[in-house]
Amino acid sequence: MARRRQAVTIKHVAADAGVSLQTVSRVINNEPNVRPSMKERVQASIDKLGYVPSIAAQRMSGSRSYLILAINDRERTIADWKSRQGTDWVDQMLFGGMLKCAEYGYRMIFELVDTHNDHVERELGATLAALQPDGVILTPPHSENPLITGFLSKRKIPFARIGSITPGAGIAMTMDDEGSARRATDHLIALGHQRIGFISGSEEYDLSTWRIDGWREAMAAAGLQTGDLLARGDFGYESGIAATHALLALKDRPTAIIASSDQMALAALDTLTKRGLNVPQDVSLISFDNTPVVRFTEPQLTAVDQPIAATFSKAVELLITMGDGANLPQPVVTEGGLVLRGSTASCGGNGPD
Amino acid sequence: MARRRQAVTIKHVAADAGVSLQTVSRVINNEPNVRPSMKERVQASIDKLGYVPSIAAQRMSGSRSYLILAINDRERTIADWKSRQGTDWVDQMLFGGMLKCAEYGYRMIFELVDTHNDHVERELGATLAALQPDGVILTPPHSENPLITGFLSKRKIPFARIGSITPGAGIAMTMDDEGSARRATDHLIALGHQRIGFISGSEEYDLSTWRIDGWREAMAAAGLQTGDLLARGDFGYESGIAATHALLALKDRPTAIIASSDQMALAALDTLTKRGLNVPQDVSLISFDNTPVVRFTEPQLTAVDQPIAATFSKAVELLITMGDGANLPQPVVTEGGLVLRGSTASCGGNGPD
Repeated sequence: MARRRQAVTIKHVAADAGVSLQTVSRVINNEPNVRPSMKERVQASIDKLGYVPSIAAQRMSGSRSYLILAINDRERTIADWKSRQGTDWVDQMLFGGMLKCAEYGYRMIFELVDTHNDHVERELGATLAALQPDGVILTPPHSENPLITGFLSKRKIPFARIGSITPGAGIAMTMDDEGSARRATDHLIALGHQRIGFISGSEEYDLSTWRIDGWREAMAAAGLQTGDLLARGDFGYESGIAATHALLALKDRPTAIIASSDQMALAALDTLTKRGLNVPQDVSLISFDNTPVVRFTEPQLTAVDQPIAATFSKAVELLITMGDGANLPQPVVTEGGLVLRGSTASCGGNGPD
Repeated sequence: MARRRQAVTIKHVAADAGVSLQTVSRVINNEPNVRPSMKERVQASIDKLGYVPSIAAQRMSGSRSYLILAINDRERTIADWKSRQGTDWVDQMLFGGMLKCAEYGYRMIFELVDTHNDHVERELGATLAALQPDGVILTPPHSENPLITGFLSKRKIPFARIGSITPGAGIAMTMDDEGSARRATDHLIALGHQRIGFISGSEEYDLSTWRIDGWREAMAAAGLQTGDLLARGDFGYESGIAATHALLALKDRPTAIIASSDQMALAALDTLTKRGLNVPQDVSLISFDNTPVVRFTEPQLTAVDQPIAATFSKAVELLITMGDGANLPQPVVTEGGLVLRGSTASCGGNGPD
């Protein structure tokens, strides 16, 4: 490592002003009980030396770090990065989170944590000790990991739980998965579909269940059966192939399919095409989450948009302005839209809706 | 903001051990000239209180921050995030950089800086003061911005300049753009192509010129002309359409095209198809940089892979182990491969190579 540069530090200011480090720190952080004359003296040294207060100095005083920490699951994130399928969860998270942080003079830091690690508390503890963030944003499946939520709660660190509706510490936030699934199903029903299959996601994620619930509600409200129309997947491409084959093996096969992830929708599209079925003429297809891949298929996929950027932006704002959000009506819901493209059509119809 | 939690801080350790903050800091940072008995005394308090040294405490001592800062251009990065075309530069950067940082017990922090801002030094200065990174990784066009490189150099902060070969401070690193363009051109020449058009990227990036150079060298080495075969683009989709039309308007139109970006290659594919030309039967097409989009076209695109993750991993390692890299042979080159897919075929041939 290179030798450390000679930056102006709080020590130089203290020496120049002839006061203690603690006094400089108190002035920098605008703490009460500092005499005006002392304040002036320290400020004069700060100006003279061109000292810029660092986060380090601010942290030493026990005040804010101006950092918001966002935590993603290590395994899934690295798998996405390796596959290079264009999944842009991290990008949309940074887009919404970093820009909102910047508005408030904060910085967003992004870390990977292995949710299945027995030592998750120790791993998280080391990160928190090092960064001392003013707030933490959890994403699935961390949002529902009691080791993590309990750890943050015990230390009174404000946090948001994205994709979580469980009561308890932390701000529960959702992207309205249930409502989105309901609206997607309603759209297909309005197009005349009655046999609407649903490919669900990994049961490790609560939102998988909410999406199933939304589909079931809409079907029930229209007096339609869902009995044999649920096929289990795990969000991944391979599981989408198996689920599609299962739906096509039904005696009365579905005329429309909703897939709980873009990768499974892609798998459904490929499988349907290989089986000689045309999308949308023979089978309509709706995808979750509107990641980039749905723009590159033929036809492009009608998709439920997961409002990742908007949700992170909101999480940052709440953590900064409301702290632990104790008085906030929860869950905080950010609604996603249904983006209509070429993969949906009237049942028995001849073209895209 | 929520009230600050009661964490164990360096102050508690100092109080418990009955020593000064500076002494605790010296022990934490393994600095020389601390008596063994003093070291034991402080360590006993650290163990007793369960204190975890924070980056803040380590920084206060003027030692390492264990942070590596990576800086991207704000405008281009936000444009990519907004367009949701699956560009995964940021992901691959984090993939290579974060994981390598973790190996060394470091953390990578990612920031956006507006390279066109007159106040770029002030903006960068504030970030550096707050984070005090042990190293900085610059990406184009920052790598060639003298305001930025001069600022870092003056402060003796080790930095890497990705996509830069200019001599001077900082570790110059490239992804072998020239060699990659040469190999792509050679591949087409080996397939029998003689009229090979080239769509160049934005002149704001040095690598645009290197890619042109590589193409020109390979053409010259094979005794082929490039006179009218260069069409200027700016990396964006629209510019790719115009450039493709320009190449097709040539009296003796090219049988193969190399595009300096995936978006321009996508534009070339769409334009060729609209003009009734088949890829690869009528025109072969090679893309730069192998972002996710090239896997979703029909045919999938043969592409030069830009080794982003490997380059950032290398940059992190060099900054941590070699500091300013003064004794390093430069530029440090990370070679990218040519990924063969369905968009290239023999000249006048009938199918993919």
